[in-house]
Amino acid sequence: LGKTLNTHLSTLAHALFPLGLRIQRQTTVPDGLSIGDALREAIPRADVIMVTGGLGPTSDDVTRETVSEVIQAPLVFNPSVWQAIVSFFSQRNRPVPENNRKQAFVPQGAEVLPNRNGTAPGLWIRSFLEGKERLFVLLPGPPAELQPMLCDEVIPRLKEWAKSPVLHEATWSVVGMGESAVAQQVESFLQELWDCEYGYCARNGQVDIRFISRCEKRIEEAEKFFKEKFGIRIFRSDGKPLESLVIAEANAKRIFIATAESCTGGLIAHRLTNVDGASRVFRGGWVPYSDVLKERMLGVDRSLIEEHSSVSAAVAAAMAEGALRFSQADLSVATTGYAGPSGGDQHNPVGTVFIAWSQKGMQTDCERLFLPMERESFKQRVAQIAIDGLRMRIENFYSFLSSPGLTTKSSK
Amino acid sequence: LGKTLNTHLSTLAHALFPLGLRIQRQTTVPDGLSIGDALREAIPRADVIMVTGGLGPTSDDVTRETVSEVIQAPLVFNPSVWQAIVSFFSQRNRPVPENNRKQAFVPQGAEVLPNRNGTAPGLWIRSFLEGKERLFVLLPGPPAELQPMLCDEVIPRLKEWAKSPVLHEATWSVVGMGESAVAQQVESFLQELWDCEYGYCARNGQVDIRFISRCEKRIEEAEKFFKEKFGIRIFRSDGKPLESLVIAEANAKRIFIATAESCTGGLIAHRLTNVDGASRVFRGGWVPYSDVLKERMLGVDRSLIEEHSSVSAAVAAAMAEGALRFSQADLSVATTGYAGPSGGDQHNPVGTVFIAWSQKGMQTDCERLFLPMERESFKQRVAQIAIDGLRMRIENFYSFLSSPGLTTKSSK
Repeated sequence: LGKTLNTHLSTLAHALFPLGLRIQRQTTVPDGLSIGDALREAIPRADVIMVTGGLGPTSDDVTRETVSEVIQAPLVFNPSVWQAIVSFFSQRNRPVPENNRKQAFVPQGAEVLPNRNGTAPGLWIRSFLEGKERLFVLLPGPPAELQPMLCDEVIPRLKEWAKSPVLHEATWSVVGMGESAVAQQVESFLQELWDCEYGYCARNGQVDIRFISRCEKRIEEAEKFFKEKFGIRIFRSDGKPLESLVIAEANAKRIFIATAESCTGGLIAHRLTNVDGASRVFRGGWVPYSDVLKERMLGVDRSLIEEHSSVSAAVAAAMAEGALRFSQADLSVATTGYAGPSGGDQHNPVGTVFIAWSQKGMQTDCERLFLPMERESFKQRVAQIAIDGLRMRIENFYSFLSSPGLTTKSSK
Repeated sequence: LGKTLNTHLSTLAHALFPLGLRIQRQTTVPDGLSIGDALREAIPRADVIMVTGGLGPTSDDVTRETVSEVIQAPLVFNPSVWQAIVSFFSQRNRPVPENNRKQAFVPQGAEVLPNRNGTAPGLWIRSFLEGKERLFVLLPGPPAELQPMLCDEVIPRLKEWAKSPVLHEATWSVVGMGESAVAQQVESFLQELWDCEYGYCARNGQVDIRFISRCEKRIEEAEKFFKEKFGIRIFRSDGKPLESLVIAEANAKRIFIATAESCTGGLIAHRLTNVDGASRVFRGGWVPYSDVLKERMLGVDRSLIEEHSSVSAAVAAAMAEGALRFSQADLSVATTGYAGPSGGDQHNPVGTVFIAWSQKGMQTDCERLFLPMERESFKQRVAQIAIDGLRMRIENFYSFLSSPGLTTKSSK
């Protein structure tokens, strides 16, 4: 029905790629009989058939039953799966619904993949069909259950199963440049680099260069070239979200962070606190969505707002400085802008944003950007640039601090 | 390779649903020969075959050629398509690459769907195959080209082509109950309801019941039943995110909102500010991630934290009350908990969270929940329950206010 975006193909393809496994076909079918058709059609075509979803407790969840029928392995009750389901509910002080009992039935010979985040176990099934062994991997549909299970249970087993050669993989990222601008700078170098595969991926204002080689030395060569080309703007992300690099580096250097977000509305704080270990370096954040709270929360002078309007370099800087002062952090970032679709004025139309970074003993920096796009993309884009600014400042932290006697000055 | 998320299925399904057309199967294949296989397999199965992507000018774009071969309609040069391509480039002051010439070839008998946003024309092809007429609709891959073409060119043609009856659709949602618990309460009623289709979808601590019928009256009957069963806990979401309902209702009633988030780290504020119109009712939020900021930002008594620890009902309530007081909002929500993976104590292990709602002139409510799950899911789940609590309080706002003389009391 199109109500849920299919993120599984992307998740699976990403995870399988370094194992040398390529997805030959992805099929989506409605609940019911067509699941069996899709399975039967896949068997002559594939060595590995991964099935996602339909492992839940309700009557429309029939994947388990259908696979059992297609591979002719009867479902048998598995007491340890049932035990896991019972303890899942009892940990949450909820009675076990009788419906969930069906989740404890497992095709004979299947290996159970434990689910730490739900009641549906994954299943790993090797079955001899049409003269050949096929591997079926059944995974729960909710991404929060599928992704950890893929990582912890499936990939290690597949690595062994596929016996694929070791591939070395690296991803570098640049924020705030377009895909073609990045490609123009590196394409000829990469084309001449021997024994490697690469690709670009642009998302959310960040361009990733994904790189694979059998030879580890190629990665060092590429890294050296990229650093010469882009300097501090490029970083080795290896597919990790930017915020996790920021939190790790801030932890390593004991740098405390604070945020003051108007137009990003808490997204920067949310992303930083998604990272385990954030509480050791993230002091806290403010979301002064109304002008009066910019004043009351962060001590932004009312006259500044009246003179420059709340979407201005002066107010962004004052917000960043207020956040630094109140939280006694080492580094802060502030955002103020017009996310749209309404708002804005003649000089600063919808899409205008000011991002300020303030750092103990340093002059506050402020950037003005124009990002005319739909509201949520705007927030994501601004947050990405703001967090990348934190990353660069943390990376350079001690060199910036060469003159610690400087008093704080804003860029207004 | 998984670099691009497939949004087409969702886009198409959404657009086709009200026409009474259901997607029976969605297939993704790599560039090349497998496109032909996928087409040939689809022909006996479907009346309409929609193909997206592969209409570009490069050598790996072979959809046009493959369709022409499968339906045995030779490609012929179409001068008016070529004219459109030439003027696309000349409007942008760019020379026409010779590569693009192939985009002007069209299977004999095809109707051209103009592309206002790119060079690849869409194609509408009726072909008599295997004893029956099939309709092929070829659309360009980039969403920015596909979506307007779908809207402007395809849907009007399909409406006429399908001559389908009008279908009525509704989605109801419940937060904080499991899928099977919800199903247990409604399944037998729904099974006996005549002339309808339904399904459940669980995500992020919310269960959706999706409902479709040719008869609008069925929707009223279902709504009445659900309201009797679940009361204020169930709401008509129609697939909209919870926060957009909250912001719309707060706008309608002029209720101002504030947030104070420790363990959700800004996610509630972020979600509320994703909604256009948030700035009219969302005053702002605090993210006091460290104990000292709970004190400094929201005036939470240090002695409360020392006595009860920062993860406690008393501190949650004090945070909610502080947010209400400082922002002069009408309604606030506060969260404090152990998101994990580390942290927690004997009485309150990782996964424990306290959510408090404070409302002008009312006693502050606090809920303790135990949600042992991975960090990001924990935050999403807590935010969902917190925002649903806002929804229920906004819905009941004036009835709650029946004794406006009450002084604020916390639940500590």
